[in-house]
Amino acid sequence: METVIPPSYQNLTFEVAERLAFITMNRPSRRNALSLEHMEELIDAFRVVGRRGDVGAVILRGAGPAFCAGHDLSEMQGRSPEFYRHLFDTCVVLMETIQAIPHPVIAQVHGMATAAGCQLAATCDIVLAAEDARFATPGVRIGLFCSTPMVALSRAVPPKKAIEMLLTGDPITADEARAFGLVTRVVPADQLEDATLTIGTKIAGASAAVVGLGKQAFYRQINMPQHQAYAYTKEVMSFNATFADAQEGISAFLEKRVPQWGDR
Amino acid sequence: METVIPPSYQNLTFEVAERLAFITMNRPSRRNALSLEHMEELIDAFRVVGRRGDVGAVILRGAGPAFCAGHDLSEMQGRSPEFYRHLFDTCVVLMETIQAIPHPVIAQVHGMATAAGCQLAATCDIVLAAEDARFATPGVRIGLFCSTPMVALSRAVPPKKAIEMLLTGDPITADEARAFGLVTRVVPADQLEDATLTIGTKIAGASAAVVGLGKQAFYRQINMPQHQAYAYTKEVMSFNATFADAQEGISAFLEKRVPQWGDR
Amino acid sequence: METVIPPSYQNLTFEVAERLAFITMNRPSRRNALSLEHMEELIDAFRVVGRRGDVGAVILRGAGPAFCAGHDLSEMQGRSPEFYRHLFDTCVVLMETIQAIPHPVIAQVHGMATAAGCQLAATCDIVLAAEDARFATPGVRIGLFCSTPMVALSRAVPPKKAIEMLLTGDPITADEARAFGLVTRVVPADQLEDATLTIGTKIAGASAAVVGLGKQAFYRQINMPQHQAYAYTKEVMSFNATFADAQEGISAFLEKRVPQWGDR
Repeated sequence: METVIPPSYQNLTFEVAERLAFITMNRPSRRNALSLEHMEELIDAFRVVGRRGDVGAVILRGAGPAFCAGHDLSEMQGRSPEFYRHLFDTCVVLMETIQAIPHPVIAQVHGMATAAGCQLAATCDIVLAAEDARFATPGVRIGLFCSTPMVALSRAVPPKKAIEMLLTGDPITADEARAFGLVTRVVPADQLEDATLTIGTKIAGASAAVVGLGKQAFYRQINMPQHQAYAYTKEVMSFNATFADAQEGISAFLEKRVPQWGDR
Repeated sequence: METVIPPSYQNLTFEVAERLAFITMNRPSRRNALSLEHMEELIDAFRVVGRRGDVGAVILRGAGPAFCAGHDLSEMQGRSPEFYRHLFDTCVVLMETIQAIPHPVIAQVHGMATAAGCQLAATCDIVLAAEDARFATPGVRIGLFCSTPMVALSRAVPPKKAIEMLLTGDPITADEARAFGLVTRVVPADQLEDATLTIGTKIAGASAAVVGLGKQAFYRQINMPQHQAYAYTKEVMSFNATFADAQEGISAFLEKRVPQWGDR
Repeated sequence: METVIPPSYQNLTFEVAERLAFITMNRPSRRNALSLEHMEELIDAFRVVGRRGDVGAVILRGAGPAFCAGHDLSEMQGRSPEFYRHLFDTCVVLMETIQAIPHPVIAQVHGMATAAGCQLAATCDIVLAAEDARFATPGVRIGLFCSTPMVALSRAVPPKKAIEMLLTGDPITADEARAFGLVTRVVPADQLEDATLTIGTKIAGASAAVVGLGKQAFYRQINMPQHQAYAYTKEVMSFNATFADAQEGISAFLEKRVPQWGDR
């Protein structure tokens, strides 16, 4: 396994193996809290992945007892308005980068995913959770409403569930998160890594050109009124049909053989 | 039962009985694949229904082992960009026509509903499914991402479920489809026709003028911000209150009798 | 318990106790139907609450066998177009006022919540329901499609569930309402009041300044495309971080003590 840890990464590890990139938040003593520096490193790591043609999917996970506990409160006391704006601006850049890169990002969630950590999970394309995972937006209890996390949360779960979580701060279980659409699969903790690898490998086996086009189109069209979304996606799909990989895939399907993607 | 099969319909049958129209996709050997010609005939059939005052609801179903397997790949190899644009344009016209006609359309789904076939089900107003029904958007596996199907899918199920289906191509069961909102009722296969008839008959028994107004308003308002949606629907509902059918319905309710709609 | 019943309130009672306001619809013989006068009084009561700094949350409930049966049909026969416009305009003002005031509003639903009564529940921030509660939008059966209720309903439950309810008029149970996101908690009827008090007390214990900011931001951002929602909420959250209550809350958390909010 190739392991790349540039000297500048103090808060995470970055590895690539068999067309999968693994970004591991690595501040276990702080429950992987998203300090400004941690977020800047995550943005950099996702941008690096986004330019790599030898990667087909990304797995985001946390070292230690939790996935991610949200912002690092120890650096948020008595700061200037400019600091807060920079902090939340960086947080938004991180979330938007995850959805902007062509590679699907899979969150592998165990333990707590709270506040911006819950947002981080909700932002990934696919979310797998261990049975012991818990999701919460408890900012209201410390006087700092989870206003940026609610953007991701309220676009993943029904609005009344989102506002209940935001107003009470109460955590939901992995099973509840699945029932409400935040998580797509829940498995026992000792099977989480295998389940994530399985889905990652499956996605990384598809045509990267096609997956990248499709992921981008998904986030573009979901913010459009339906008629506009159709006007946009019919051009995307017509363009896609002209790809060599589409022609190969259609031929392989009709000939009942495995397709050979051209971009490897 | 009146049966109308204009000579030009090669891919479907069209029947009307007791205020219900039945449109049956009839290419069982191709699992009712949506060739260009098939889609043109479906558009025509829905437009014909849309002008008929003696029809109160439409049932869309498939002959043979599947509801619909999506586009007909055999006509999609090595075609020009113009062909693909025309094909997906026609597909979008079909989907928008189903939601534009005043008559509610009920999908009666058994077996596979895949790619544009899944989109077709997701586009109908109401979806009933047999326990054996399966829904999938597997285009990614053949290099042709289900970009137009995702418009309907991601507006019916939670976004994370939609993107998981789109990125993996994995099918979901009828029960999962119900839990996520794609299907409203699941019944044993041998009860599917009866269940569909029951709900169709119930809807066809309402005032057609009122149902047509309500269906149109639903799809208009759902694409609006809430304040705009209220500004629009309060005019719709005020107008509706002046209908003879509304005055008759309110009187019948207060007098505890069955209303007599004026448009029969 | 302080009880305020201005002489002008004929259709509801209004009480405040321990930072909770209780608005009780009190037309039990009419199943709390929303006559024009009743809606005007509700609007007034919510506006009064909205200006009170000694209230942290509002509980909306109905006296008698039902939560609310919707508009009062006895005043809707043979009226002018101007009357209907005024009626639905007033209804929309009521719904928008509930979401516009800074205080979270909790619906405590027992028995039937139908038509505008279903809309009223769907409009509250949090909805608790007794096991015997039922939700329906049955206007289609009396020739008056639930066009304004559908704005709230189709923003709370998946669109296919919403349109099925609107086209058939069939009620759903409390458990179904929870599964589809309309209700957040379901409890036995004899525990409903306690469960509502518990969640109300919890919310009223948070910083009112922070809750008010967060509630407003929730309804603003949910109508925006995601990128715009982030541009907006990052300013909201930066502003929030400068609040004395946020600095107190962060300090209390880091010092493992209970925060003391400054606005009491």
